[in-house]
Amino acid sequence: MTDLRVRAPETTAAELDAVLEAAVAAAPAFAATRPADRADQLRQAADALDAEGPRLVPVAERESHLPTARLTGELTRTTFQLRLFAQVLEDGAYLEATLDPADPGWGMGPRPDLRRVLQPLGPVAIWAASNFPFAFSVAGGDTASALAAGAPVVLVAHPGHPELSAATAAVLGDALAAAGAPEGAFALVGGLDAGRRLVQDPRITAAAFTGSLHGGRALFDLAQQRPAPIPFYAEMGSVNPVVVTHAAAEQRPDEIAEGFVASLTLGVGQFCTKPGVLLVPAGSGLQARIAGRLGRVGAAPMLNERIAEGYGAMLGTLAAHPAVTVLAGPDRAAPDPLPTLLGTTAAALLDDPRGLTQEVFGPTGLVVTYRGRDELFAAVRAFEGQLTATIQGVDDDPDAPALLPLLTARAGRVLWNGWPTGVSVTWAMQHGGPYPATTNATTTSVGASAIDRWLRPVTYQGVPDALLPEPLQDANPWGLPRRVDGVPQPAPERV
Amino acid sequence: MTDLRVRAPETTAAELDAVLEAAVAAAPAFAATRPADRADQLRQAADALDAEGPRLVPVAERESHLPTARLTGELTRTTFQLRLFAQVLEDGAYLEATLDPADPGWGMGPRPDLRRVLQPLGPVAIWAASNFPFAFSVAGGDTASALAAGAPVVLVAHPGHPELSAATAAVLGDALAAAGAPEGAFALVGGLDAGRRLVQDPRITAAAFTGSLHGGRALFDLAQQRPAPIPFYAEMGSVNPVVVTHAAAEQRPDEIAEGFVASLTLGVGQFCTKPGVLLVPAGSGLQARIAGRLGRVGAAPMLNERIAEGYGAMLGTLAAHPAVTVLAGPDRAAPDPLPTLLGTTAAALLDDPRGLTQEVFGPTGLVVTYRGRDELFAAVRAFEGQLTATIQGVDDDPDAPALLPLLTARAGRVLWNGWPTGVSVTWAMQHGGPYPATTNATTTSVGASAIDRWLRPVTYQGVPDALLPEPLQDANPWGLPRRVDGVPQPAPERV
Repeated sequence: MTDLRVRAPETTAAELDAVLEAAVAAAPAFAATRPADRADQLRQAADALDAEGPRLVPVAERESHLPTARLTGELTRTTFQLRLFAQVLEDGAYLEATLDPADPGWGMGPRPDLRRVLQPLGPVAIWAASNFPFAFSVAGGDTASALAAGAPVVLVAHPGHPELSAATAAVLGDALAAAGAPEGAFALVGGLDAGRRLVQDPRITAAAFTGSLHGGRALFDLAQQRPAPIPFYAEMGSVNPVVVTHAAAEQRPDEIAEGFVASLTLGVGQFCTKPGVLLVPAGSGLQARIAGRLGRVGAAPMLNERIAEGYGAMLGTLAAHPAVTVLAGPDRAAPDPLPTLLGTTAAALLDDPRGLTQEVFGPTGLVVTYRGRDELFAAVRAFEGQLTATIQGVDDDPDAPALLPLLTARAGRVLWNGWPTGVSVTWAMQHGGPYPATTNATTTSVGASAIDRWLRPVTYQGVPDALLPEPLQDANPWGLPRRVDGVPQPAPERV
Repeated sequence: MTDLRVRAPETTAAELDAVLEAAVAAAPAFAATRPADRADQLRQAADALDAEGPRLVPVAERESHLPTARLTGELTRTTFQLRLFAQVLEDGAYLEATLDPADPGWGMGPRPDLRRVLQPLGPVAIWAASNFPFAFSVAGGDTASALAAGAPVVLVAHPGHPELSAATAAVLGDALAAAGAPEGAFALVGGLDAGRRLVQDPRITAAAFTGSLHGGRALFDLAQQRPAPIPFYAEMGSVNPVVVTHAAAEQRPDEIAEGFVASLTLGVGQFCTKPGVLLVPAGSGLQARIAGRLGRVGAAPMLNERIAEGYGAMLGTLAAHPAVTVLAGPDRAAPDPLPTLLGTTAAALLDDPRGLTQEVFGPTGLVVTYRGRDELFAAVRAFEGQLTATIQGVDDDPDAPALLPLLTARAGRVLWNGWPTGVSVTWAMQHGGPYPATTNATTTSVGASAIDRWLRPVTYQGVPDALLPEPLQDANPWGLPRRVDGVPQPAPERV
C-alpha cells in the first residue's frame, strides 16, 4: 500500500506517473469529503506523528544536526498546525460560501440565483525545506494546508533528510489511509529530475516551495512557462531588516544586543526569518556591544555539508565587499562555523543595495550604521521585498510613525520590539512578502489563511438545490457561516 | 490637471514615466484613505458617469457599432459596479481583519500579539477590452475593484474606442479628484509600446487584462519574466460549452434552440461568455431546428474592422476543418456578418480537441452531436479551462448528477437551464476559470470578490495600538467585522 506513497529518494518517470495518476484519481473524492471528516484525518495524522516522535526525532537529529529540544519543539509545531487546520475546516468560513437569491429588482437588471464557493484546485506539488525537517517538510505547513483544502499532495523530499522524509511519509500516509482519506491523497517523491517533471506536469494544478532564491525562481519560471501556467508559491527568504531607532539605541542597548545575537544565531542562523541586517545609529556603540556578545556564542554544526559550503561562499562574498568591515569572525569553518558579524554604513548600502542586502544563510549578521533620519529612511527604501521587518523603538518614539509604513510597504510581517525568528502558527499569521521574499505576496505559507492558496471559486447559476454541493444548499447541511444576499450570516448553532 | 490623467492614444515613454511617478506618489495616501471615503469617491464617479451618459453613449455607439439600448444598459452596469464596490468597502469584511491577542498558553508555544489585515499592493495596470466599451473598459470592473482596494490605476485604452476612452477618463478622473482622491489615483494611457513598458515597469505591482489568448498570454509572459514578477490576471475567453441532455433534447427542443440562438448572436457573438459549442444528442434534430432559427437572425456590424477580420480568419479555419460541416452560412462578410452554424461529432472532437474547441470571436457556433453518455462524458473531459459551462437538463435528469462535477472541474461558473451571456454583478459572481480561460483561476474579474486581486496581507506583531492601522486597533474605529482569537465577530452596530 505504501508503494505509491513513498517514492523518494530518486523517483523514476514511471513511478512519478503512477503517483500522479493516483493523485488525479483521488482528487474528486478528496474534494467531496466533508470538512469535518478531513479535520478528523488531519487530527489522526497529528496523533500518529506525535506518537512516533520518539522514533522520528532521533532520525531528524542524525540527518539535520539540530538538537533534540529544537526538533521535539518543531514536531509539536508540526502537529499543532495539522490540528489548527482541522479547526479551520470546522469553522468553515474558508469556503466563502456566498448565496445571492434571484432578484428581479437587482440594480443592473434581473439577477439569477447565484451561489459561490471555493473548491480545491486539484493535485498539488510541494517542495520540502532543508531547515525545518518537520515543520516545512513532509508533514509541514504546506502539506497541512493543502490536505485541509482537499488537494492531493505530491511532496518532493529534501535530499538533506531522506530517511526522516521516508519515515514521516509512511506515518502520515498510513494515518491518512486509516482515517479514510482516498488512496493517492498523499505521496512522497524525490530527486531533481522528478521535481522538474512534476512542476511541468499538466496534472499538477499548483505548487509551493521553501528554499533558496535560485531554486525557487527556477521552478517558478518552469511553472509559468508551461502551456497552462499554474500558481507557484515560492518562499525564498530575505534579510529581515531590523531598525534600531536613536531613542532605542540610547535607552536599551544591552537588551537589543542580546536579543539580536540570540535571534541571529538561533538554529545556527538557518532561518528564513533570521535578522540578517541591523540598522543602528552611527556612534551608538551597538556594533561593539554586539560583537562582544557574539564572541561568547559557540560553534555549532550546520544542517549539512552542502549548506555549510554555500554559507562559506556567501559569507566570503559579503565579507570581501570593499564597503564591509569585519567586526567578529569571519569564520567559515565548515561544517561548524562560529557566528560572524560584519559592518557597513547606510551610505555604502545606498551605493550598492543589491550587493549589501543579499541573504547569507547561516550565522552571519550585517550591522549598518546610519547618520540621521533621512539617511535611515533612504536606506530602508533601498530594501527589496522581505518576509519581515522590525522596529526596535521606545514609547512615543519620534521615528516610529513614519518608519512603520515604510517597512510595511516592503514586508509581510512587521514587528515592534520583537525578533523575527520564531513564526507562530495562528489565525492572524502572515508568512510571505513582496518579491524576492516570495513569488506571490498575496498568500501566506503559515497560518490559517494558507488554505486559500489551494482553492478556486466556482459559481453555480440557477442550479437546483438537489444538484448543488452541500455548502450552497438551502438547508446549509454543513452549518457554515455564509453571506446571503450580501449580508453575512454566522454559522448556525450546531447540535 | 487632466494632463497627467489622460495620455491616450499614444503615450510616450516620458509621459508614462510621469504617470507612474504620480501613481507611486498617490499610493500611500490612497491606501490610507478610509473605506467610507473611498466608497464616496466611487459613488461620485458613478453619479458623474450617469450624468454624462447622454454625451458618452453616442460616442460609444459611433466607435463600437453597438446599439444604443445595449450601450445604455452597459453604462448602467458600469456605474452599478462602482456602487457595489462602495458597498463592499462599507461592509469591510474584504479587509479580513484578524486579531490574535498574545497567548502564553498557545498550543505550540507562547503566542505574541498578531494582527493581520489586507493592504493594497500599489499602482496597478489594467487593459481595457474592445467588446465592452464601458463595463470592461476605462471605468469598468477592474478599475472599480482596484480603486476600491485603494490601488492607483494606470489604464491602457483599447484602440477600438479612443474618443470614448478619453471622454470617460476625463469624467472619471475629474469626479475622483473632486471627491478627494489623490492626484495620480487614476490615469489613462495608450499604445502598444506604452503597454509593454507598463507591464515591465517595477512601479507596477499587479495587472489585469481582458482580451484574446494571444495578447493575454504575451503580456502574462512579460509580467512573469520581470526581475520581480507580478500577479497578472488575464481573462482570455473560452467556448463555454453547453450540454443538452437526452431528456432535455426530447422535452424542450424549441426552447433550447431559441435560447441558444439568442445567446450565440447577442452582441454579434462578441462576448467572452458566448456559448460557442453546443453538445446535443445525435439524432435529436436540434441541429436543424437551430439552423432554421439562425437563418432568421439578420446581419449586424462587428465592433471594428480588425475584429471583423479576425473573425473571418477564425471562422475560415474552423469551417475548413475536415470534420466540420456547414449547417448555416458560413458568412464572413466583414464588417456585417450573418450568423454561422457549424456541425461536428463528439468522436471528431475527441480526435482533435484543440482544433475543435478554439474560440471564434463572433456570431459562429459549433454543434457537436454525441452518441450516448460515455461519448458525451469523454467529450466533456476533452475541454480545457472555461469561463462557463452549462447543462440544459430536466427535473431529475439522469445525466445531471455525474455531468455537473465534470463541468465544474473545468469552469469558473456552471449554469443550469440558463445561457452564459449576461454576467450579473453580485456578491456571489465568479468570472474566471482554469487556463486558458484565464491565467489565474483563483480570482475573479466580476463581482464583489474581485477586490481581492489587488490586496496582500500584512501581519503586525507586538505593535502598540497607537501605531497600528485603524482596522487593527483595539477600539475598531472603522467598525469592521473581525476575527478575534479565532472567533468571527460581526461588525458592531454603527451609530
